[in-house]
Amino acid sequence: MSLKLSGWDDTVVALATAPGIAAIGVLRLSGNKAIDIANSLFPSKDLHQQATHTLHVGFIREEEKDIDEVVIALFKNPKSYTGEDVVEISCHGSPYVQQQVLQACIRKGARLAKPGEFTQRAFLNGKLDLTQAEAVADLISSNTAASQKAALHNIRGGFSDTLKELRENIIQFSALIELELDFSEEDVEFANRDKFYELILSAETTTQDLLLSFKLGNAIKQGVSVAIIGDPNAGKSTLLNTLLNENRAIVSEIPGTTRDTIEEVININGILFRLIDTAGIREQTADAIEYIGVEKSLEKRSSADVVLYLYDVNAYTKDDLQKIIAAFEKENIRFILVGNKKDIGGKVAEKKFDGIHSLFIAAKQGAGIAELKEAIFHTAIQQELSSEDTIVTNSRHYDALQQIERSLLAIKDGLDKKISGDLLVPDIHQCLHYLSEITGDISNETVLDYIFSKFCIGK
Amino acid sequence: MSLKLSGWDDTVVALATAPGIAAIGVLRLSGNKAIDIANSLFPSKDLHQQATHTLHVGFIREEEKDIDEVVIALFKNPKSYTGEDVVEISCHGSPYVQQQVLQACIRKGARLAKPGEFTQRAFLNGKLDLTQAEAVADLISSNTAASQKAALHNIRGGFSDTLKELRENIIQFSALIELELDFSEEDVEFANRDKFYELILSAETTTQDLLLSFKLGNAIKQGVSVAIIGDPNAGKSTLLNTLLNENRAIVSEIPGTTRDTIEEVININGILFRLIDTAGIREQTADAIEYIGVEKSLEKRSSADVVLYLYDVNAYTKDDLQKIIAAFEKENIRFILVGNKKDIGGKVAEKKFDGIHSLFIAAKQGAGIAELKEAIFHTAIQQELSSEDTIVTNSRHYDALQQIERSLLAIKDGLDKKISGDLLVPDIHQCLHYLSEITGDISNETVLDYIFSKFCIGK
Repeated sequence: MSLKLSGWDDTVVALATAPGIAAIGVLRLSGNKAIDIANSLFPSKDLHQQATHTLHVGFIREEEKDIDEVVIALFKNPKSYTGEDVVEISCHGSPYVQQQVLQACIRKGARLAKPGEFTQRAFLNGKLDLTQAEAVADLISSNTAASQKAALHNIRGGFSDTLKELRENIIQFSALIELELDFSEEDVEFANRDKFYELILSAETTTQDLLLSFKLGNAIKQGVSVAIIGDPNAGKSTLLNTLLNENRAIVSEIPGTTRDTIEEVININGILFRLIDTAGIREQTADAIEYIGVEKSLEKRSSADVVLYLYDVNAYTKDDLQKIIAAFEKENIRFILVGNKKDIGGKVAEKKFDGIHSLFIAAKQGAGIAELKEAIFHTAIQQELSSEDTIVTNSRHYDALQQIERSLLAIKDGLDKKISGDLLVPDIHQCLHYLSEITGDISNETVLDYIFSKFCIGK
Repeated sequence: MSLKLSGWDDTVVALATAPGIAAIGVLRLSGNKAIDIANSLFPSKDLHQQATHTLHVGFIREEEKDIDEVVIALFKNPKSYTGEDVVEISCHGSPYVQQQVLQACIRKGARLAKPGEFTQRAFLNGKLDLTQAEAVADLISSNTAASQKAALHNIRGGFSDTLKELRENIIQFSALIELELDFSEEDVEFANRDKFYELILSAETTTQDLLLSFKLGNAIKQGVSVAIIGDPNAGKSTLLNTLLNENRAIVSEIPGTTRDTIEEVININGILFRLIDTAGIREQTADAIEYIGVEKSLEKRSSADVVLYLYDVNAYTKDDLQKIIAAFEKENIRFILVGNKKDIGGKVAEKKFDGIHSLFIAAKQGAGIAELKEAIFHTAIQQELSSEDTIVTNSRHYDALQQIERSLLAIKDGLDKKISGDLLVPDIHQCLHYLSEITGDISNETVLDYIFSKFCIGK
């Protein structure tokens, strides 16, 4: 291990489940003294004598006073999440009772764990690399199929594997350079450098694919913002309700799902799209049909990833739309034109705006909504959610990959200029350095503390 | 078992931990198919081949799609909470991921559990009686040392044991009556009925002790309401803050404790005292020194368990206090007189009000607060929190015990009147009936459904 965490020899404890009254709540202990501490509070059995991965029912008791009847799960070093001895205590779901058990563990010598400390210990003990550790946090905060999948891919080491290939590529390149240097003194003609190019180009392609995936990764992790603008009678609220209601119907099939954040968010193909607050839009849409007004509101909308411009097909001319398109293009904004209130089934609207790239819907009747959702998705994502590729979702990784790309370009440039191999060595080292930074083989306590501080307590 | 629950053969599933993002969340499956269902989602191992009380790490996978990496805890029938096969799945703490696992279990044949259904199944399978099942709910909602202790006492079967003694007592009495009846035809003189009295009096004492404990039990479970009244410059807010702040300091030692309900609640000796909203009091206290005003405000305070009357020792005379005491006593209200703003350390105030039963404090300086808290406690509770006695905290139990007491009195009355033993039999049956109702040996589906509907989902 490259570093030692202060307080590393302590045994830590924390509530691992969400706070609040429930059937059960689970406390987690990890460290050298985890079993000692649990044992001192659990008179029923000697936990030291029990096998790893076993469950034990009994009372938690301190100084002749019962605290709770619990189930203890025993994971013995190194076969545990952290690689240390881990004891999970499944208590009754009273926050008061859980605090009593927690306090008893602390009195017996445990320290309250810092956020992410269990995962940090797992990382420091080599149970997972940093990309896997970060994927654990991503999985916990995942709220869509796409974010769940990306996180699980990385927990399984999908990103680590990609990086390993990249590293092997660069190390192989480095070996060839060394070989060339060894022979250069003998004044032999430079070896055929085709293989050099092949390795570097392969590394570059992998790096660029990863960098490109960040756009999707960001959408997966942060969601995509969609502004719906248009003049007041265009039917924005109706459209919003149609989009949200359909979504709610899907959501309400899942019992217990919290709706708090669903209100203005829709899920299209596993990605969350935030429909930006229409109240803020409304104030500026009274004059939206005047194109200066549109441009102005576009400025304010520049924060949105996609702008959906809704218009009443009966109130607009083709000329109106062409001006709107020009305004959007001038501002370099991703937009979708959506003609509302078309007569259902008829093709009148489409003909009227022949040659204009617009969708047509009847928001009230729900016609064209599926096509609209697909259009929103593809305008925002412009990429397929392919099945097994690594997707970069983390800006720390993205930054390091940019550094790697820069070094790879420098190496390629050196090769083009046929410079001596020893001058390429610093860039090779840069590549390897940044790869190690991503996986955590090289890291410093500040960076680690920052990364793990984003975790929940208890993980 | 006396009844069969509809849907009883189903395998049920529910989230057992509190909803929300956390390190982990635990789903619980119980029923005939619990292991089949878990097995079909857990490719790593055949769970049927694993021993009970063991832990298994692996992926939850449905139709080639990973859902989560989990730890599975296996409890095989009958060695489980419900007495059925139970599988607990410890998922990552993303509500989205947990719902995915839950939905997968439902697709594989589980049904979403009703509130309390796991405990109801435990009861129906004879793993615990109804008083123990109710104590589980009490423990989950416990928020003080006293409520925790009372619930644990009953989970361990403390109340059941007391009821069992009571039942044995009555059955012994019944046997003596039978014996007497057998011999009565032979016209033998009635046996010495001393033993009869002894048994009935013992049963009556036990029943009365239990009934008396309900006052304390109710305070433990519901808390005690305390109204602080007095005129505006008596120092009510200062006193309230002193009481609350001291309490907050204690609470804040416990990390993660929710403060939501602490604001106007203080914990004295493990019992919660709700300090009734002073805003409502303030409006009527301007004229509080006029005794009609006091009487009026007392009417409105009649809902409080204890009234604390705060007065400024410098503004009041002994005569004032005597009139206030008379007003309280007339209304039959439990009250404490508290003289505020005494000069610290001096005995001036005490002398001035010689012969009046009043406490003296200096709210601002915090003097006399410990004594005040003890006085609040003893005025409200008037009973010791003794260590091992059963305390009735449940009004269902209280109601049944009242019926038992009534029957016991009828039996005693019958003995006094030397009536024939066969006429006592209906009352004996009444006693046994109500005892069985408490423990759930006799119950009906409606009553059970009502009791368990108060539980959390997942318990």
